[in-house]
Amino acid sequence: MHHAADGTLIMQIAELDSPSVLIDLDIMERNLRRWQEHCNAAGIASRPHVKTHKIPELARLQISLGAKGINCQKLGEAEVMADAGLDDILVSFNLIGAAKLARAVALARRIKLSVVCDNDVVADGLSDAFAAAGMRLDVLAEVDTGGARNGLQTPQDVVAFAERLSNRPGLRFAGLMTYPPKGKVAEVRAFLSEAGELCRRQGLEPKVVSTGGTPDMWKASGYGGVTEHRAGTYIYNDRMMVAAGAATLEDCAMTVLATVVSRPTPDRAVLDSGAKSLAADLLGPGRGHGHIREYPDALIEQLHEEHGVVDLSRCTGRPAIGERLRIVPNHTCVVTNLHDRVWGVRGETVEKAWDVAARGRST
Amino acid sequence: MHHAADGTLIMQIAELDSPSVLIDLDIMERNLRRWQEHCNAAGIASRPHVKTHKIPELARLQISLGAKGINCQKLGEAEVMADAGLDDILVSFNLIGAAKLARAVALARRIKLSVVCDNDVVADGLSDAFAAAGMRLDVLAEVDTGGARNGLQTPQDVVAFAERLSNRPGLRFAGLMTYPPKGKVAEVRAFLSEAGELCRRQGLEPKVVSTGGTPDMWKASGYGGVTEHRAGTYIYNDRMMVAAGAATLEDCAMTVLATVVSRPTPDRAVLDSGAKSLAADLLGPGRGHGHIREYPDALIEQLHEEHGVVDLSRCTGRPAIGERLRIVPNHTCVVTNLHDRVWGVRGETVEKAWDVAARGRST
Repeated sequence: MHHAADGTLIMQIAELDSPSVLIDLDIMERNLRRWQEHCNAAGIASRPHVKTHKIPELARLQISLGAKGINCQKLGEAEVMADAGLDDILVSFNLIGAAKLARAVALARRIKLSVVCDNDVVADGLSDAFAAAGMRLDVLAEVDTGGARNGLQTPQDVVAFAERLSNRPGLRFAGLMTYPPKGKVAEVRAFLSEAGELCRRQGLEPKVVSTGGTPDMWKASGYGGVTEHRAGTYIYNDRMMVAAGAATLEDCAMTVLATVVSRPTPDRAVLDSGAKSLAADLLGPGRGHGHIREYPDALIEQLHEEHGVVDLSRCTGRPAIGERLRIVPNHTCVVTNLHDRVWGVRGETVEKAWDVAARGRST
Repeated sequence: MHHAADGTLIMQIAELDSPSVLIDLDIMERNLRRWQEHCNAAGIASRPHVKTHKIPELARLQISLGAKGINCQKLGEAEVMADAGLDDILVSFNLIGAAKLARAVALARRIKLSVVCDNDVVADGLSDAFAAAGMRLDVLAEVDTGGARNGLQTPQDVVAFAERLSNRPGLRFAGLMTYPPKGKVAEVRAFLSEAGELCRRQGLEPKVVSTGGTPDMWKASGYGGVTEHRAGTYIYNDRMMVAAGAATLEDCAMTVLATVVSRPTPDRAVLDSGAKSLAADLLGPGRGHGHIREYPDALIEQLHEEHGVVDLSRCTGRPAIGERLRIVPNHTCVVTNLHDRVWGVRGETVEKAWDVAARGRST
């Protein structure tokens, strides 16, 4: 291992032990550029969700390519990103409790912070904390456009809540935020359109209308009136995004480097990568726990904690013990959350070693 | 927060933010004592699998209560444990590659290391490395008694492999190891008995016969001829162990402290704890992602990465926004793997803050 004159790390993938998480830099950079160009053409701001990578250097890269700011789900992630110079952060989660409110105020003193909120308990807490600090916080009303998670349930609820928000000291009603359900573009459009219209009639302009998600990101302009979109997974992509039609396998930048450690039967291989490396998220019945690039017909049929059990019965070529494989995971975001470090590679060369600095910042 | 004279941390659970992982010390200590007493009575050595907690202090506690040594799945875990003074470690995983072999030799210079192996490629690597170092390594032949993971497939394969092991320089055939399938005590007994007998006929005494797993741990003496058992989950227990009949909910020491952050509909609550805090492992259809102690009829029906979506339709009492809940997870071992710290509690008092020191040591 050595460093080039520009600080780039130079080593070979062959020098890495397994399991290790590799990021193909050419693919990643192409994913980032393509989405930013699409946003530019569609007139939508990009606010990448950093939950997928949790790496400040990659957030800065997203900004340098044109992203307006970033999106965090946890205050702890936002603090790590702010420490690294990211200065426009939406925390898309209801913040509750004295500890988190004090941290939110401290964060808002040093960056442009905005948050979401869908209920009066959370709004009261934010209002008290920010008014006491002599500050005003931008708050997006979170709306449930069918995702059945957080969010106000009807456009009528939205406008009533927006009014209450705008009347509270310490807060500023900044617009609408939703995490749209997959494949329901028309329904999301109808909800956002009616809610926006009702707000405007009350003189409450939703300056920001923020949608999210990678599966439908290419359709985001179809939601209508959207000012920004929060995509996360698009930086790496994964089998779920391929299944959703948002990417191809060639767009998947993350692979887990694994080693075949056992071949107990002709049809079975066992990998040194289980649920604690690949994550157990399923894609659907019979689809397995990842795509093995070298053996596309192999099925990772079961993950124990540290063992990946592979069914080779449909393969013609079969791996030997000791062979190293690269696996496209089902869901990159949860893989990120398992590892303290990932490696940026071009071809067989390792150029980057990134600490997953915001990993484990769960509060 | 302050510290008592003996170094005990004294704070209240109310001072912890959420999500946080709590370990009820009374329950944990009872779980540890009960299993050690059972092992003592059964004449089986206990070799706890530290994958469940990944905390050196807890491994030392297990030893102080009578465990013979510990079991690690990854060399990286074993190195952390050795650094903390644990000196008898079984690494129950095929070790492959120059980097891991060099680390294994270094580890064996400072502790009593033993490993498992189920194939000649791995055996050759271990033999070359340990012979070159002028050392002999205890190796258990891993056998597949129906778990369909690693392991030699038949008793005849076992004895042939044991002979080859015992003829290799640098290695010592030390016995048999298996991870038994659940609920197959008779089948496991038959396999181990025949394999052991065949080995003995060749003058290859399997001094160690090591079984594992918490689900069937109370039946371990029924496997016949077992000298040690590797249980992991028993220290904390979880809903999977309750479902397996190995524990009751009252034996579950780990809970995840979560906060209700939204109540979008009368039947829905949303928690600040999703798959990145509770882990997504499922118990079975309709069983949900954890047991909420305060609302046992509530169903955690869906985990997003940071949101837990709860169906309250079967509850009489329902939680308010801001209410804090304690959730027994489905699978403690994967929860451990998500968090950098856990808190030891008695009643409402927090006595311990433990770093999960071996978390993320995936190679």
